[in-house]
Amino acid sequence: MSTPSRIAPLKVGLAGLGTVGTGVIRLLEENSALIARRAGREIQIVAITARDRTKDRGVDLSGYRWVDDMGELATVDDLDVVVELVGGADGPALTLARETLTNGRALVTANKAMVAHHGAELAALAESKQAALKFEAAVAGGIPVIQGLRDGAAANRIDRVYGILNGTCNFILSTMERDGLDFAQVLSDAQAKGFAESDPSFDIDGIDAAHKLSILASLSFGSVIDFGGVEARGVRKILAADIAQAKTLGYRIRLIGLAEIDGDNGSANIFQRVEPCLVPLSHPLAHVIGATNAVVAEGNFSGRLLFQGAGAGDKPTASAVVADLVDIARKETGPAFSMPSAELEKLPRAASAHRVSKSYLRMVVADRVGVLAEITAAMRDAGLSIESLIQTEAGDDGTALVAMVTHAGPEQAINDTLQALKHSDSLLGEPMVMHILGA
Amino acid sequence: MSTPSRIAPLKVGLAGLGTVGTGVIRLLEENSALIARRAGREIQIVAITARDRTKDRGVDLSGYRWVDDMGELATVDDLDVVVELVGGADGPALTLARETLTNGRALVTANKAMVAHHGAELAALAESKQAALKFEAAVAGGIPVIQGLRDGAAANRIDRVYGILNGTCNFILSTMERDGLDFAQVLSDAQAKGFAESDPSFDIDGIDAAHKLSILASLSFGSVIDFGGVEARGVRKILAADIAQAKTLGYRIRLIGLAEIDGDNGSANIFQRVEPCLVPLSHPLAHVIGATNAVVAEGNFSGRLLFQGAGAGDKPTASAVVADLVDIARKETGPAFSMPSAELEKLPRAASAHRVSKSYLRMVVADRVGVLAEITAAMRDAGLSIESLIQTEAGDDGTALVAMVTHAGPEQAINDTLQALKHSDSLLGEPMVMHILGA
Repeated sequence: MSTPSRIAPLKVGLAGLGTVGTGVIRLLEENSALIARRAGREIQIVAITARDRTKDRGVDLSGYRWVDDMGELATVDDLDVVVELVGGADGPALTLARETLTNGRALVTANKAMVAHHGAELAALAESKQAALKFEAAVAGGIPVIQGLRDGAAANRIDRVYGILNGTCNFILSTMERDGLDFAQVLSDAQAKGFAESDPSFDIDGIDAAHKLSILASLSFGSVIDFGGVEARGVRKILAADIAQAKTLGYRIRLIGLAEIDGDNGSANIFQRVEPCLVPLSHPLAHVIGATNAVVAEGNFSGRLLFQGAGAGDKPTASAVVADLVDIARKETGPAFSMPSAELEKLPRAASAHRVSKSYLRMVVADRVGVLAEITAAMRDAGLSIESLIQTEAGDDGTALVAMVTHAGPEQAINDTLQALKHSDSLLGEPMVMHILGA
Repeated sequence: MSTPSRIAPLKVGLAGLGTVGTGVIRLLEENSALIARRAGREIQIVAITARDRTKDRGVDLSGYRWVDDMGELATVDDLDVVVELVGGADGPALTLARETLTNGRALVTANKAMVAHHGAELAALAESKQAALKFEAAVAGGIPVIQGLRDGAAANRIDRVYGILNGTCNFILSTMERDGLDFAQVLSDAQAKGFAESDPSFDIDGIDAAHKLSILASLSFGSVIDFGGVEARGVRKILAADIAQAKTLGYRIRLIGLAEIDGDNGSANIFQRVEPCLVPLSHPLAHVIGATNAVVAEGNFSGRLLFQGAGAGDKPTASAVVADLVDIARKETGPAFSMPSAELEKLPRAASAHRVSKSYLRMVVADRVGVLAEITAAMRDAGLSIESLIQTEAGDDGTALVAMVTHAGPEQAINDTLQALKHSDSLLGEPMVMHILGA
């Protein structure tokens, strides 16, 4: 079994030597012979760059040419591809990306923020220079979902794509459920163990999931990427009691990013939202535990496709980066968003008020006569009917917790209910609303 | 938004007009503009052929050139691709496949039997003629798992691939569980409703899953396809009582095709088996319900990847066929089994006797003193210890059903136990053994 050697190796420059960057180096060392068999040629890292040359990263970097100025990687002689693992929507990453493509070289990136904000510009630049732009690692870590949508589902009109796109949130929610703990406690445990960032807001406020969702939506719908159009709510306000009530009602709580084509007004509008949802136990996403990610795409011929796996981590993310390199080595590349930039449609944003779903509504209330009558009257006036309701003691302080699932109704009815109750002194603290993921 | 027109359309000949063939025609009609945007050119069916020209198939075929002799499709002028949906490992399908590739034309096939038996030969022929050979639709219907393994997981050494590969069996097992019915009754219901073939043996005896497994194994391991090396046992002997006992013990029963590299003897051997297994509820495959398929691949960097979706049906299978056509239209094709045929390794088959797993063992026994002592003594002598055991009445006839899960042990110990009990008159009928799918 000889490694094919008649074709020149693919020469790679690597920018960024954090956990993913060193993971890529380890992967290309450990699996090099196998990758050469699959790619038809060797894939060689030639040059590397990062902010700090002296830091010990646990891998031997002596065999690679060090480039001091990150921006210069774009012009190092003989490189075929630059792998950008620096991060950040703008700054050095974006500069390097632009210069790499301008020089007609392929760019592989794991940078979801940069793709979400500048993907359309970079894709157009890549096409004009006939250079490949690949970002499998930017969404859902090691899961080949970019390729699944771009190629595997290419025959389908996709009107809905959704999933669990943030491993940190899913880890926190699974742990809250398993151990019956509140959000804050699980978060600080996760931070202590290194599973969550010291500043976790990108993860727990849904921004990271929103970056990924905007990329998935563009690929799925053939639309111009629209990160600014993603509504995002995170998981900070979820109580252990919400998880317990949801369980009693037959659901699990998951942070779901969902994008769909809303054709209600006769033209195609795009709806994109990240929010905690109640997921019925009959849905596969209810069984996604821990830091795992999962993406569902609904094609008009394929039906529901599910892609699931590790959403983060050095090794899975390196697997996705190198999958892109293999595609480039094989010359199996094409438009980044599955079709030429000029073919992508700019879709208007859909409003949410008329969207119909079941909802979960939880309120902490004063435990006294007439409170439930007040709440249910507000719901009746808004045209919202109740499927199930649980009232329990909220604590030793004379408060009660009311949790309910409504029948399907427009979101406006929930808004109207909350508006009517806004100044009620029966409600203690802000009510929590979560939508229920449809089948 | 104009359809790109400067590039010539991809011209397709379609052989076989059953449900999948007519599905492909419907898909290419319904999604044609979208597919042209994604593929960069139009995909046009030019010529069609099937056994019976006069049959009403519910689609208008008048716009397509009819070819009387199926074999002639390989040489019709101007065709770029032949889609083979005739079926059967040999015969007209194989003749057409060989002639198509020999003529240097691309071949797309949904024919798992043909690929399992002749895939190595066809792949070598395709390479020698620089023609594409694609078979996404041959495994797991609409799920893009061939591509997921070939491209998405390309960076990984994969040592284990397994899944639910037959929708008919999964439908039967899910229905047995939901309704508490025995196998035979559910099968005849499924046949009456058209969910199962009138001769269901390919499905329920595991042959169909074995075809698919051998293809997945070759792609995953870089090994020469070895259908003859797949051990296959089906689902005929599963009782409603097995499903009930498994549930009590925390498992669901699924027909699992599993292939792995067995490195125990210092060299890489290949192990391939289709059999009903007990799947722990914590495993995602336990939650795959109905005719759905799901494939898990374990990469040394990606970790566990799961691909799930519709395993059969006209529309999902057509989605996979047209995904292959889009790849060909984009010229994103390469070696069929992910690497050149000459690079595929011929791996020796691994023996099963030393494989270690927990097992489920069920026996119907005479309900009298000493029976359990006889069984447990045989297990002790074979070195097999019991994790849990349930004895219940089997019926009104004075028989009992003993179901147990063993601790992990070599398969040989189960074989030895059964051998020791073979001539015991305490056992009524054949014992049932199912392995437990590891985490």
